[in-house]
Amino acid sequence: MQRLIWTVVAAFAMAIVLGPIIIPWLKKLKLGKVMYELGPDHAAKAGTPQMGGIIFALPALIAAAAFCYKDADLSLFFICLVSALGFGLIGFIDDFLKVKKHSSEGLTPKQKLAPQIVLSIGLSIWAYLHPAIGSSLTVPFVNVEWNLGFFYIPVMVFILVGTVNSANLLDGLDGLLGGCSLFDFITMVIICLALAAANPDRAGSLLNVAIFGGAMAGGIIGFLQYNSHPARVFMGDVGSFFIGGALVGMAMVTRLSLLLPIIALAMFMSSVSDLIQFAYFRATHGKRFFKMAPLHHHFEKCGMPETKIVAMYYIVTVMLCLLTLLGFVA
Amino acid sequence: MQRLIWTVVAAFAMAIVLGPIIIPWLKKLKLGKVMYELGPDHAAKAGTPQMGGIIFALPALIAAAAFCYKDADLSLFFICLVSALGFGLIGFIDDFLKVKKHSSEGLTPKQKLAPQIVLSIGLSIWAYLHPAIGSSLTVPFVNVEWNLGFFYIPVMVFILVGTVNSANLLDGLDGLLGGCSLFDFITMVIICLALAAANPDRAGSLLNVAIFGGAMAGGIIGFLQYNSHPARVFMGDVGSFFIGGALVGMAMVTRLSLLLPIIALAMFMSSVSDLIQFAYFRATHGKRFFKMAPLHHHFEKCGMPETKIVAMYYIVTVMLCLLTLLGFVA
Repeated sequence: MQRLIWTVVAAFAMAIVLGPIIIPWLKKLKLGKVMYELGPDHAAKAGTPQMGGIIFALPALIAAAAFCYKDADLSLFFICLVSALGFGLIGFIDDFLKVKKHSSEGLTPKQKLAPQIVLSIGLSIWAYLHPAIGSSLTVPFVNVEWNLGFFYIPVMVFILVGTVNSANLLDGLDGLLGGCSLFDFITMVIICLALAAANPDRAGSLLNVAIFGGAMAGGIIGFLQYNSHPARVFMGDVGSFFIGGALVGMAMVTRLSLLLPIIALAMFMSSVSDLIQFAYFRATHGKRFFKMAPLHHHFEKCGMPETKIVAMYYIVTVMLCLLTLLGFVA
Repeated sequence: MQRLIWTVVAAFAMAIVLGPIIIPWLKKLKLGKVMYELGPDHAAKAGTPQMGGIIFALPALIAAAAFCYKDADLSLFFICLVSALGFGLIGFIDDFLKVKKHSSEGLTPKQKLAPQIVLSIGLSIWAYLHPAIGSSLTVPFVNVEWNLGFFYIPVMVFILVGTVNSANLLDGLDGLLGGCSLFDFITMVIICLALAAANPDRAGSLLNVAIFGGAMAGGIIGFLQYNSHPARVFMGDVGSFFIGGALVGMAMVTRLSLLLPIIALAMFMSSVSDLIQFAYFRATHGKRFFKMAPLHHHFEKCGMPETKIVAMYYIVTVMLCLLTLLGFVA
């Protein structure tokens, strides 16, 4: 536990130091956000630099690498790392192209999706072949192992691609994705600790996953100092994909992917609300189900202040995480 | 642990339900805050009802009473309860008088301090005579028991009165005291769990203190839904004194009062900045050390947005709490 706390503190400290170094540099590179034309009126946010995800991603990677138990099994840890880094890299390329083109369009949706699917297939096969993961998913609360056999791979690809893009959709208000995912990471860390205590033979490997989650949590807390309302920097796709990849990676290696719609309900609802909006628009030939999708923009259009929506999302996430933990503690 | 989680969830749920019942009622009673004349320009906040502390105090009391282990030693739990309720009652009277007089002045400082000192003397003697508390304070990190003998009582009176008034001073920005104290309660709960695990003979008694802290945390999370920026309700003196009393009570019964300047640095600095301001003003015949005291108003006067100050206070508190926990985990 002491090592875990130091991981959080180290990642936090690095993020705090990195912020004032990277933010002016991002501004100089003219990485100011070109506001998406269909978004609510956020004129005040124009000029806020993107790509701030680096502020937590880099510290999280360094802290995780520095504090992981090198003499224990690191294979699950590496899967999480590759998931976060891989998806983060796709986001980085997208952000970078936006900057070069000075527009809000980086990669096309297809250009984003293709490498995501390739990476997801690779990760799913890796998990499928890993003796500690295999082809099963744990069904929450009933604690049944659901063996999907070979179908594990397409299902997991869907979960991976779905999660990272849901994280990306949730990243629309100051501090929203950062804070919500922070509670998710803390929850996954506690679950890893509980699983490690219950399975002494797999403890080292699970503790390394917990260290990874702690590093993410610490980095994000530091990032929130700069991203909380009014944000001085946005995380960009590099940040949201990195968070999505890290979270789904932790869920995958613990077989707990089916927890994601609960602990990450905020992300889940972002995607679901987008899908409902799209389907309803199609079916009704032009009517809108939500005033705007994803859901958090609907609340904005309903007149809720931004900070209030973020607080509500935090509070709901914390309660769902607590209820989820009921399944893992005595 | 499951029982603890249910305590948090129950207190939270009650607070969420109570909010929309109590807030309109407080407004009807014309309990809208009369802004303190010397405060920064918060005209937008005029009319926001006070006394919202009831929204978390009542649920916390009910949840704590419902979930505490009735077959275990409840004496430490009762000390916390009396501390929270006693100081909360003083705050309630103050708030109530403000409402009746339709002014920002309730009890005079002396009228507040006298019952606080009487209550503190009572609580200190209770602790002094309690076999599990006695006349010692644990010195943080070195883990030395510092036996104060009979001086325990005046020292503890100073700590009690100091903490509740510091909490009161910190209650100046939306969500500030609620959020900071939330992290303190969570920290005290974790410490109680750690102490209970290390001292099986005192486990039941300490778990009851943890339940009390969990009830406070849950109630405050619910309250933050209404108190987060832009606040629909303020906690008032009833809320800040209740929080101060509950926190210092938990610290007293675990002999950990000397942790308060660390985990509750935000409160501590509110008092210290007030004292510095006052002493400097006197010594220099009219110069100000801070642009305004307590410290959070100084940051406001420096141009930091309210939400940013609150986020910074949260982040610093979380890190201090984490570092404090290093002394209690393996």
